[in-house]
Amino acid sequence: VRVRLFGPAAQLRAALGGASGVEVVDAPVSIAKAPDPAAAARSQKDASVVRAARAVADGEADAFVAGGSTGAALAAGLFNAKRGRGIHRPALAIPVPVPGAPVTLLDVGANVEVRPEHLVQFAYMGAALAKVVLGIEAPRIALLSNGEEEVKGTPLVREAHAALRGRAWAGAGSFVGNVEATQITQGAADVIVADGFTGNVALKAVEGASQATLELIRGAVMSSLRAKAGGLLLRRALRGLKDEIDPEGAGGAYLLGLRRLGVVPHGRFSRHGYAAAIGLAARGVEGDLIGRTHAALEEAGALRRAPSAPPSSVPTS
Amino acid sequence: VRVRLFGPAAQLRAALGGASGVEVVDAPVSIAKAPDPAAAARSQKDASVVRAARAVADGEADAFVAGGSTGAALAAGLFNAKRGRGIHRPALAIPVPVPGAPVTLLDVGANVEVRPEHLVQFAYMGAALAKVVLGIEAPRIALLSNGEEEVKGTPLVREAHAALRGRAWAGAGSFVGNVEATQITQGAADVIVADGFTGNVALKAVEGASQATLELIRGAVMSSLRAKAGGLLLRRALRGLKDEIDPEGAGGAYLLGLRRLGVVPHGRFSRHGYAAAIGLAARGVEGDLIGRTHAALEEAGALRRAPSAPPSSVPTS
Repeated sequence: VRVRLFGPAAQLRAALGGASGVEVVDAPVSIAKAPDPAAAARSQKDASVVRAARAVADGEADAFVAGGSTGAALAAGLFNAKRGRGIHRPALAIPVPVPGAPVTLLDVGANVEVRPEHLVQFAYMGAALAKVVLGIEAPRIALLSNGEEEVKGTPLVREAHAALRGRAWAGAGSFVGNVEATQITQGAADVIVADGFTGNVALKAVEGASQATLELIRGAVMSSLRAKAGGLLLRRALRGLKDEIDPEGAGGAYLLGLRRLGVVPHGRFSRHGYAAAIGLAARGVEGDLIGRTHAALEEAGALRRAPSAPPSSVPTS
Repeated sequence: VRVRLFGPAAQLRAALGGASGVEVVDAPVSIAKAPDPAAAARSQKDASVVRAARAVADGEADAFVAGGSTGAALAAGLFNAKRGRGIHRPALAIPVPVPGAPVTLLDVGANVEVRPEHLVQFAYMGAALAKVVLGIEAPRIALLSNGEEEVKGTPLVREAHAALRGRAWAGAGSFVGNVEATQITQGAADVIVADGFTGNVALKAVEGASQATLELIRGAVMSSLRAKAGGLLLRRALRGLKDEIDPEGAGGAYLLGLRRLGVVPHGRFSRHGYAAAIGLAARGVEGDLIGRTHAALEEAGALRRAPSAPPSSVPTS
């Protein structure tokens, strides 16, 4: 994988040391802290994230990875890599690190408000991701709700449930109904669909609670000499576990629905997490995630139709 | 605490053995599986949950505990114990078992759709709970959102943020702004306010991820002889931890906003969880949770005003 890195060149070169395979492009303007990321991405053509998105739009690179600010990454992607044909809204889709049963959750933050037809597209986009990136042949697709029964949920969830239930799934996988948030970490579905607000809350609640539980275990291990001895014996077995549920290891979220691929790691990731994000982007490119997402939507007839001609204004009577 | 238990008497007596302090009332009709719990609670006057709620409304008992179906408990409570004066909507408020920093989360499922003024009332209700039940003198109150910045969130969250920000808090605690779901388990706030859909998702995501992480640790401990030996040495230190984050130990959610107190445990709780739910109800009654919730809302001027008189129909001209 070849990496082109946009940012303040002197600082980046110093941080990189002699790392090979990285080309540094001096782009010292940052809009990561801009109060209105969309306006900033439109007006600041020299911002590092805008230049990275443009390089991808121009075919100079295959995917962009941007962790400064989700809003800025989204806006730079939309204005430069452009929305895919027939796509209502791009979505952030993350393979949640659940050991043994990775689950694709989307949208985790691109759209705080959506319509039922957006959730339908997210379902097919997530299914394509689960196939291409996680190798799941017939993904089980579910809607996140406050109960498994189809009468549960907001009007949005109930309408999306009816729309998903009524579709032919064929090769795309299958719709298994609603899941509760408890089930995210229980392998009840391969793809879990939500609006960007709920998905963001669910993802962060899972990440926070997993980390908090590990911290508690660490505290228990340090609570007595006897426990410390136990911790030493367990160290090797627990090390692998910590890596398996580490959000950094998963590399962040795919930005799907544009004409080119984007990956959005957490802004707080260390270099380990950014490396994983670059790996995630490479896997998406190698598997043609964008092309296969589009093909899945097309095959399912889930692409937005071009606006139909306006009704004739000639009176019929 | 004296307990009156409504249900199929013969089965209950057999299950109770010789337990003392429990009076069994034969009420064999159950509406826990009714597809429309509100209709069932209205028409099935003999259902066990309706009889329990009526006993509380009639002053025969101080609080009701109902874990069969949240919808049925809510409906039975509303129709019998009635909504409190000036309350928009009752809410389910749960002390989330976070060791060292229990956090009150509400609404966790009574209202899938709310208006900003409902969230304002929930904030004061949660603050009263944190004071009375958890002994927190000046609770820090936060809104659950997809980012800490006040521009983050759905229109509902942004409007509620502005309304909460603009209020005088005085003795009720303080509004500390938005929190992300990662912060639920980090002690960032004492009371976290959300609509019932988002709160339900957040609670279940936290519970699911905590349990899943403990399961993973258990798996790691069993993975080798060396790890098993470590697990034996750690057993005592980890036992307390498991109890501390066990949802059953917390006893479930308070149903606030009625004229009498309700407690809603998970339907899947064992007898240990139901005992905790009864304890939760007793603590709420002893601390006069209902009275103090109402007083907090009144003091803050957050009660719904009686509908004002219709405008005079006499033309002024």
